Amino acid sequence: MKKNINITEELKVVEKYIKKDLSKEKTISGLYKYIFRSSGKKMRARLSLIASSVKNHKDRFKLASVIELLHTATLVHDDVVDNSSVRRGVKSVNNVWTNSHGVLIGDYIYSKAFILMVEIGNKNILEELANATNDISQGELIQLDAIRNIKISLNKLKKISYFKTGRLFEAAARTGAILSSSNRNYINNVSECAKNLGILFQIRDDMLDYSSGLKIGKPSYQDLREGKVTYPFFYAYKNGNTRNKKNLFELLGKNNLNQSKAKTLIQNLNGIQKTQQLAEKYHVKTVDCANKINDLFVRKEMIELADIALKRDK
Amino acid sequence: MKKNINITEELKVVEKYIKKDLSKEKTISGLYKYIFRSSGKKMRARLSLIASSVKNHKDRFKLASVIELLHTATLVHDDVVDNSSVRRGVKSVNNVWTNSHGVLIGDYIYSKAFILMVEIGNKNILEELANATNDISQGELIQLDAIRNIKISLNKLKKISYFKTGRLFEAAARTGAILSSSNRNYINNVSECAKNLGILFQIRDDMLDYSSGLKIGKPSYQDLREGKVTYPFFYAYKNGNTRNKKNLFELLGKNNLNQSKAKTLIQNLNGIQKTQQLAEKYHVKTVDCANKINDLFVRKEMIELADIALKRDK
Repeated sequence: MKKNINITEELKVVEKYIKKDLSKEKTISGLYKYIFRSSGKKMRARLSLIASSVKNHKDRFKLASVIELLHTATLVHDDVVDNSSVRRGVKSVNNVWTNSHGVLIGDYIYSKAFILMVEIGNKNILEELANATNDISQGELIQLDAIRNIKISLNKLKKISYFKTGRLFEAAARTGAILSSSNRNYINNVSECAKNLGILFQIRDDMLDYSSGLKIGKPSYQDLREGKVTYPFFYAYKNGNTRNKKNLFELLGKNNLNQSKAKTLIQNLNGIQKTQQLAEKYHVKTVDCANKINDLFVRKEMIELADIALKRDK
Repeated sequence: MKKNINITEELKVVEKYIKKDLSKEKTISGLYKYIFRSSGKKMRARLSLIASSVKNHKDRFKLASVIELLHTATLVHDDVVDNSSVRRGVKSVNNVWTNSHGVLIGDYIYSKAFILMVEIGNKNILEELANATNDISQGELIQLDAIRNIKISLNKLKKISYFKTGRLFEAAARTGAILSSSNRNYINNVSECAKNLGILFQIRDDMLDYSSGLKIGKPSYQDLREGKVTYPFFYAYKNGNTRNKKNLFELLGKNNLNQSKAKTLIQNLNGIQKTQQLAEKYHVKTVDCANKINDLFVRKEMIELADIALKRDK
C-alpha cells in the first residue's frame, strides 16, 4: 500500500459510515443524529486507520467506524453515570432527553457497532473487541470506587486509566493491525504503543480538568465536583500535611466549589506538576514503542499523536 | 440425540456457567453475585436449550448462558430506565447501589455475553444476536414514546412487544436451532413459534401488571404509575366515553394511585378481557407454529410453554 495516505481525509469516509443510521423510528434517528452532530477528535478511529494502513483492506473504514461507535456508546453511558450536562461543547443526551434515553441509545449504538464488526467477520478482531468492551466497563465500575476514596493507590489510578481509556486505544490499534497484517511483531508493537498513548491521553485529560477556562468544551473541576480522585488530586493529597489533607477532602464532591481555592491548593502541593511528569513518562513510553514499529508511516503518525497528546490544551 | 432430555436439569448447568464470573475486582464480583443470586425463570435459556436439543452440540449450554446474560443485561438497564426499586422480589441494583452501577454492570454483563458468543464462533449466530440486541434497544426506545401517549396505535404496541420481548425469544430459538441443525424449515418454524410465544408472554405480563396482589414479585400497576400505555389501558381507553377517557388519562403516570378506582375503571371498560383475548390469539399462533415442527420433543415443549404463558399468574 502506497503511503500517501491522508488519515484526516480518510476520517471523513468513516464519518459517513457512522452517520448512516439503521433505524426508521423518528425518536431513534433524532437521538442518533444529535449524538453525531458534532464530530469530535475521532482519536480512536484515527488509530485504527493508522494501524490498518499497512495494507489496503476493504474493511478498514468499517472497522474504524466500529471503534468510534463503541467509544461513543461508552461516552453516552458515561454522561448518564456522571450526570454530565455537557458533552463536546453541546448539551448531553441525558440533559436534552432523559437518563433513560441515554442508557438505551448507548445500548443501541453499542449493538450497531456489534452488527458492523460481525459483518467484518474476523474472529480475532471480534475477540479483541469483546474483551476490550468488557475491560472498559470494568474500568468504569472500578472508577466508581474511586469516588471520595482518598485511600486509592497510584496503581489503581493507572489501572483505571488503562481500562477506561488505554484499553480502547489498544484495541483500535490491535484490530486495525490484525485486519491488515499477519506480522505478530507489528501487531504487538502498535498495540502497546497505542495502549501507552491512551494512558497518556487520560492523564492529560485528568490534568486538563484542573485547568481553568472552558477551552476543553466542558466545565473545569468536574472530576473534583463529582468526588472523583484523579492524578492531580492524588498527588496533592499525598504531598499535603494534615491540614491540607482535611481541606482537600472537603473539596471532594463539593458542587459549589471555590475554584480559585481549589486551584491554589492543588498547585501549591504540586498536583499538576507531578501529573505532568507522569504524562511525560508515558510520552516517553509511547515514543519508545513507536520506535519499534518498522513501518515508517505508522511510526511517524504514532509519534505525532504522542506529541499532540502531551501538548494538547483542549 | 436421544430425547430423554430434562431441560430443567440442563438449566442447572447453564446456571453454573452464568454464575462463574470473570472479574477479580471486589465491587464487580459483588454486584455480579447479587444480580444472579435469585434464579428467575430462565425462559430464554430454556428456549435456547429446547431449540438446540435436536443434536448434542458441545456449545449448547454456553449458548443458553449467552442468551440469559443478554436478557439480564437488558433487565438491569430496564430497572435504571424505569427507576424500578424491585426485581424478582428483591431490591434492584439501582436501588441497592446506584443508577451508575446499574448502567455499568449492565454493560459488563452484555460484554461478557459477547465474549462467550465469540468463543462459540458461529457467524450466523453472531449475526442474529447482534441484530436482536439492536432491535431490543430499539423496542425500549420506542416504548419511551409510549409514556403518557394516549395516541399510540395497537400496531405500535405490538411492535414494542415484539422488539422488547419477542425478539430475544426468537433469537434464543433461532440461534439454538442454528447451532444444532442445518434444516432451514426447522430453524424458521421454531424461531417463528418462539417469536409468537414471546409476544404472548409480554401481553400476559402487561395484563398481570393490572392484577392485584404481589404474586408476581413486583408491585402492581407499575406500568400505569410509570405512565406506560400497555394493552389493558389501551383497550379500556379505546372503549371509554369522554369522561372515562379523561379519568383514565389522569391515572396515567400518577404515583399515588387509587388502585381500586383504577381496577374498576379498566375492568369495566373491558381492558383486561380484551387483553386476554389478544393473548389467546397469540397462544393459537404459537401452537400453530409449534405444530409445524417435526421434532416431537421440541414441538411438545413449545406447546407446553405456550400453555404456561397463557395461564401463568406470576
